[in-house]
Amino acid sequence: MPLDFRIKHINGRARRASLVTPHAEIQTPVFMPVGTVASVKGVPQDTLEELGAHIILGNTYHLYLRPGVETVRKMGGLHGFMSWRRAILTDSGGFQVFSLSELRKLNEDGVTFRSHLDGSSHFFSPESSMEAQIGLGADIIMAFDECTEYPADQARTRASMEMTARWAARSKKYFEDHKHEVPWNQYSVPSTQYSWPERGAAASLPLQNAGSTASDNRVLSTEYCPTQSLFGIVQGGMDPALRKESAQRTVEIGFPGYAIGGLSVGEPRELTREIVESTLEHLPKDKPRYLMGVGTPEEIVEYASLGVDMMDCVLPTRAARHGLLFTSEGKVSIKQARYAQDSGPLDPNCGCRVCRRYSRAYLRHLYASNELLAQVLNTIHNLSFYLDTMQRVRHSISLGEESRFHSGV
Amino acid sequence: MPLDFRIKHINGRARRASLVTPHAEIQTPVFMPVGTVASVKGVPQDTLEELGAHIILGNTYHLYLRPGVETVRKMGGLHGFMSWRRAILTDSGGFQVFSLSELRKLNEDGVTFRSHLDGSSHFFSPESSMEAQIGLGADIIMAFDECTEYPADQARTRASMEMTARWAARSKKYFEDHKHEVPWNQYSVPSTQYSWPERGAAASLPLQNAGSTASDNRVLSTEYCPTQSLFGIVQGGMDPALRKESAQRTVEIGFPGYAIGGLSVGEPRELTREIVESTLEHLPKDKPRYLMGVGTPEEIVEYASLGVDMMDCVLPTRAARHGLLFTSEGKVSIKQARYAQDSGPLDPNCGCRVCRRYSRAYLRHLYASNELLAQVLNTIHNLSFYLDTMQRVRHSISLGEESRFHSGV
Repeated sequence: MPLDFRIKHINGRARRASLVTPHAEIQTPVFMPVGTVASVKGVPQDTLEELGAHIILGNTYHLYLRPGVETVRKMGGLHGFMSWRRAILTDSGGFQVFSLSELRKLNEDGVTFRSHLDGSSHFFSPESSMEAQIGLGADIIMAFDECTEYPADQARTRASMEMTARWAARSKKYFEDHKHEVPWNQYSVPSTQYSWPERGAAASLPLQNAGSTASDNRVLSTEYCPTQSLFGIVQGGMDPALRKESAQRTVEIGFPGYAIGGLSVGEPRELTREIVESTLEHLPKDKPRYLMGVGTPEEIVEYASLGVDMMDCVLPTRAARHGLLFTSEGKVSIKQARYAQDSGPLDPNCGCRVCRRYSRAYLRHLYASNELLAQVLNTIHNLSFYLDTMQRVRHSISLGEESRFHSGV
Repeated sequence: MPLDFRIKHINGRARRASLVTPHAEIQTPVFMPVGTVASVKGVPQDTLEELGAHIILGNTYHLYLRPGVETVRKMGGLHGFMSWRRAILTDSGGFQVFSLSELRKLNEDGVTFRSHLDGSSHFFSPESSMEAQIGLGADIIMAFDECTEYPADQARTRASMEMTARWAARSKKYFEDHKHEVPWNQYSVPSTQYSWPERGAAASLPLQNAGSTASDNRVLSTEYCPTQSLFGIVQGGMDPALRKESAQRTVEIGFPGYAIGGLSVGEPRELTREIVESTLEHLPKDKPRYLMGVGTPEEIVEYASLGVDMMDCVLPTRAARHGLLFTSEGKVSIKQARYAQDSGPLDPNCGCRVCRRYSRAYLRHLYASNELLAQVLNTIHNLSFYLDTMQRVRHSISLGEESRFHSGV
């Protein structure tokens, strides 16, 4: 079993579970920090560990363009390449192709696009996305989907949803045929991060020597056989009936986990919530449910209360780099002159290393002076706030404290 | 005694000593990382502590312009403002006025200059530099000097050196009259960083309440009386005779430590060494000697062997941000494509958190992708390399290993 999902507590529609992947045990509901090109911008990996991140996200589109899948694969996959021993999830590249690249051309086969970096031409299909994601070697990878634009009419939304369903089947087929090619499968990967040597087993094992120890590893591989898990993605735009059909068709194909994609694409937040709520009804209760690309601290608490298990968003990291900080007392725009001589901590109720040590005045100065450290410290705090928020959500679900849970942040 | 300098070992001309300031005990010869605007660019303060930095530098010119001395003073000085509990040294602002600002106008009183940030007009004199440096509250502050340009003829160099001597006397007079105004003098400052509360005593003590506990603090202040130390600066261009005269005149005024300024201004390195060597002969052996603004790893080892006790340079931090890394095997330009799939550590002989965890391939990728983390990790490594280099120098002096000491890096 590459994935073990065990629900420990249920409180209303919310679930408190543990998700065991080849590299980590993750407590859900979980917020996953985004590490687009194999780095959560400005935060060293040991700091991420200290913050309590057990799973982070990588973006296949970016990594495919730079440094390239082959480089990452040769370094033992993303885990070896970036020396991150806990779990990783990669998206399929579909969303970025639609949002970042130019001159894309879509047909049944896949999508041709130009790199946002240098304009070079590339092609992604369900098969090539799987090939890339197997080479990157994340614990959880995503089916290649078409993210339907907003707004879109019913016919367009149906056609797009049906394409995603066909691509899901192709993604699964390619994955099942090739999943043994994951770069860490040929080694005996320990099941927890604690037994890894300092620089990571995959990174320090020279690949050209793999042959000499292949038979030993094969024995271990057969016994343990860690591999990736492929999640399906539900589309269907803002139409509950199409969402229901997409969910049913995706579940029919069969995946160890299901994501809700195609939201946070410009629609009103109330509509997001409605679609999330109605889609969740059609997803199996015993499998992890991942809501892609959301949200604010209030929103992630709310979605967890609706039964979402996994979420990711660039908001905490991107906002941090623009001086927008989330605190227990609300949002703080640290660039404001009112903080210039404010000797208090950013968030008096936060125990992160930033709030324990630095004043608002200092953080304001760093930001106003365009100092690198501003982006580093702001990102650490915002991630800490998000991860602590989910920690509190999990605690509340366990305790069955419905009211406290809903009051949230 | 604001400063206690004790020589423990002498090996040739090199000295191994301890320098105790109000905030730290510093082992010399020491390299001081540069934290221009109250931040060593990209490196959190706790990481600096882990690296073994016991004293860092702040630049008065930059801090005076942003956030302004009054803001820093109100936060308890630089220590409180940036939450750095160990020692700090500030320069006088003189060097930056000459190297960064525009339209400067110099006369006996001081220098009028325009900010490199917004073009606003400002005036620095020995008195205003002391006032600023007392407000910033570093452990060690520097006399206001004129950094003679290179090349300069004998008459110009003499006139400049004599101006520096007169300004040194004025600096000392103002400092002696005002040193009790240092922001942390009104509190009972513990003598080591370990007893400070997490966010720093100065930062957490509300200044408006200082009156209510003033009598208690005064008693403690009288007993302990921590204060700043003012160092004199020797100028004299590239003329050994003028350097000798400058040293003698500065020593005559009398300071607890002496700096050699006006070097690394474009002259050949061989000349730098000659001037350092000849100037050191005229400085008292029982006082710390600070060589300003040098150098490469090889140079800081060499200057320590000549009897220099303190050095600072932007080279390790600035080079890091440009992808130039110092290692035991020589310089590494991490942007080069040859490192794209190099799974080895940056420096196999380095125990820093970067070399322990990440590969050259990953560091190269971060730099090529213009990721924030590249600058953070590169800076941590280069500082670690400089600080470890000085640690080895100190160890060699203690052991009396002349040959090993000279082979240095």
